[in-house]
Amino acid sequence: MSTPERTLPLHAPMSQFQVKNGELAVGGIPLSRLAARVGQTPFYACDRQLLTRRVAELRAAFPASLKLHFAMKANPMPAVVCHLAKLVDGIDVASGGELKVALDAGADPQAISFAGPGKRRSELEQAVAAGILINIESFREVAELAAISRETGCQARVAVRVNPDFELKSAGMKMGGGAKQFGVDAEQVPELLAEIGRSGLAFEGFHLFAGSQNLKPEAIVEAQNKSFDLALRLAQSAPSPVRFLNLGGGFGIPYFPGEKHLDLTAIGTNLALIVKRAARDLPEAEVVIELGRYLVGEAGIYVTRVVDRKISRGQTFLVTDGGLHHHLSASGNFGQVIRKNYPVAIGNRMTPAKRETVSVVGALCTPLDLLADRMELATAEPGDLVVIFQSGAYGLTASPQAFLGHPACLEVIV
Amino acid sequence: MSTPERTLPLHAPMSQFQVKNGELAVGGIPLSRLAARVGQTPFYACDRQLLTRRVAELRAAFPASLKLHFAMKANPMPAVVCHLAKLVDGIDVASGGELKVALDAGADPQAISFAGPGKRRSELEQAVAAGILINIESFREVAELAAISRETGCQARVAVRVNPDFELKSAGMKMGGGAKQFGVDAEQVPELLAEIGRSGLAFEGFHLFAGSQNLKPEAIVEAQNKSFDLALRLAQSAPSPVRFLNLGGGFGIPYFPGEKHLDLTAIGTNLALIVKRAARDLPEAEVVIELGRYLVGEAGIYVTRVVDRKISRGQTFLVTDGGLHHHLSASGNFGQVIRKNYPVAIGNRMTPAKRETVSVVGALCTPLDLLADRMELATAEPGDLVVIFQSGAYGLTASPQAFLGHPACLEVIV
Repeated sequence: MSTPERTLPLHAPMSQFQVKNGELAVGGIPLSRLAARVGQTPFYACDRQLLTRRVAELRAAFPASLKLHFAMKANPMPAVVCHLAKLVDGIDVASGGELKVALDAGADPQAISFAGPGKRRSELEQAVAAGILINIESFREVAELAAISRETGCQARVAVRVNPDFELKSAGMKMGGGAKQFGVDAEQVPELLAEIGRSGLAFEGFHLFAGSQNLKPEAIVEAQNKSFDLALRLAQSAPSPVRFLNLGGGFGIPYFPGEKHLDLTAIGTNLALIVKRAARDLPEAEVVIELGRYLVGEAGIYVTRVVDRKISRGQTFLVTDGGLHHHLSASGNFGQVIRKNYPVAIGNRMTPAKRETVSVVGALCTPLDLLADRMELATAEPGDLVVIFQSGAYGLTASPQAFLGHPACLEVIV
Repeated sequence: MSTPERTLPLHAPMSQFQVKNGELAVGGIPLSRLAARVGQTPFYACDRQLLTRRVAELRAAFPASLKLHFAMKANPMPAVVCHLAKLVDGIDVASGGELKVALDAGADPQAISFAGPGKRRSELEQAVAAGILINIESFREVAELAAISRETGCQARVAVRVNPDFELKSAGMKMGGGAKQFGVDAEQVPELLAEIGRSGLAFEGFHLFAGSQNLKPEAIVEAQNKSFDLALRLAQSAPSPVRFLNLGGGFGIPYFPGEKHLDLTAIGTNLALIVKRAARDLPEAEVVIELGRYLVGEAGIYVTRVVDRKISRGQTFLVTDGGLHHHLSASGNFGQVIRKNYPVAIGNRMTPAKRETVSVVGALCTPLDLLADRMELATAEPGDLVVIFQSGAYGLTASPQAFLGHPACLEVIV
């Protein structure tokens, strides 16, 4: 068969999920049966084995002594955090609320770290009481933690979150470089370290995070090298040896047409060199890579049922019982400048006889509620199940769930 | 005093709120006292008197027989719906969940209407049982409602939501014209009306809605005239006389620098003509204007407390305990293409001695969490209260409240 002429870029294949008798399967369960088991649509489903496999792939690509942390903000579903807490070396939390979930999941407080630009006093108190590592992001936090340590007799464990003097090239979101609310500017860090020493806090190391959703290995390698060099430089001003060095993450997954899966080879090779350098130059330090989206994003799907099929002025719409109130990112309204389609399929018609170009919309009374804009999908009818792939990260919790008063969405891990 | 040279556009004055002893007041209560009464920050506060005043302004501008409906999706806080239900002539709901709130608020089912492109069977059943008017948006809904009416013995009350063959010029969001998931294309409506007649549903009229957030009176006038003409044309195919004619709303409020308050004069004059034409051509019809944002948007503020004040590479950041998880729109991530600042003030320093250029950010670990980008505000310190105006519509429920696990936001009406 000759290849048809194609000029449009395609989505990366979503081959992480099996297809059984024409149905997408999650954890081996065909989608229509899973929907029946959940008892409603819409829902998110996360595949436990894909989480396990992803961690194994990373372990295989990375040097053995490298520590792997999960940034649970990407998917704070308690059962997901429970599953990953057993597989990774630590959990990063972004609030007191997330800290509770991480502790309930059985994560070792010693290996929980807490970052966030606006930590409230009550959250700092929680963190000190829990004995977790606090990534300090301002001079105020040093003073607050010193006071809490004094009042409670618990010495606060701290690392310094550094706002680097460089940016992560090609990152979906830049979290460092330039003027930022995150961390402390690299050039102010020596002064902060002196203050930490004077305040009697337990200094443990550094957290550097340059950006997220990067699909270019060479940019990630460069950021890791620059982060390591910067940490090495800052370590000279530290009140005690560096025991913890979090080089961030920023590994991307392919969402949009033309994007490809990240190749870990070069990143792993470079991390092996970094770990060697660390063993020589920061002998007490464990080197940490912290990943959120990359650990969970590809393991999850969003499932919504077709309620209506309408043709308006020649364009076919599948109207579903879901929408942007459950999956804001897929509607293009969370951080994207230009709306693009996520990979989408009709999950109970994976080997269709007929295909057609349709738009998939949600149930909400707003034109923003667009889940797929004129995509070629299996010809679908009311009752069919629309699947949005790459939905394991920044899905339900990153969406305005109360918008328009529709029923709650469920989440399952299979 | 000579006018300083100004090339930058300014925000419309937010003079709807009083200032008392240098503090913004809501319902007469100074902000710091209100915050103490609420018991926490962040919170939303809505001023009851401003809602009442806004309805009075509309009544004064509109012909006496015109009906005014509240589209509660803009602010479904039960106490807001209760207050407005007593002042307006009807409530428009967008889901079964909103229907419950409207009924609890004491709204007359006769004057509740329900629109939405993906009404589930269970919602249609609720609506029929409640005896509300259902805006039909597809042929499927006719069939479902006919079946429900047969099974329950309750005749469904219906209007037809029309996707017009024109667009609302200058609308922030276009809801009609072209290919849309909303309503039924005008050219398909005669066939739909015949089907409604055959199915024995109680036909009551039409709902036309061309778009939202429009600040140009002439564009709104044009849309209302075109909508009325279209309804008149479609009425010829109706199975019974038109008793309900909802011409939509779309009235905008000024959010961004350079935008001005909508002048109602021309709109009121035109509506008086429409009401006269209706009395002649559709003698049984009540003409309805349905407003959401315009009724509630300017009566509400979002209040968040400064947790930290940081200087990064020459730029000052006020880090607050709130953020985009409570107010996604103010962060520029809900429907906006280019991020612009909402009107913002330091609510407990309304007559400041010193001002400075700062960025206000939320507590979330994402660069999207930007509430004010380099605005000139009163010089503020931790503990001060940041106010975001124009926040009475599409605020809390349009935001990803569970994002990053921070405490819930409260809402009060004063």
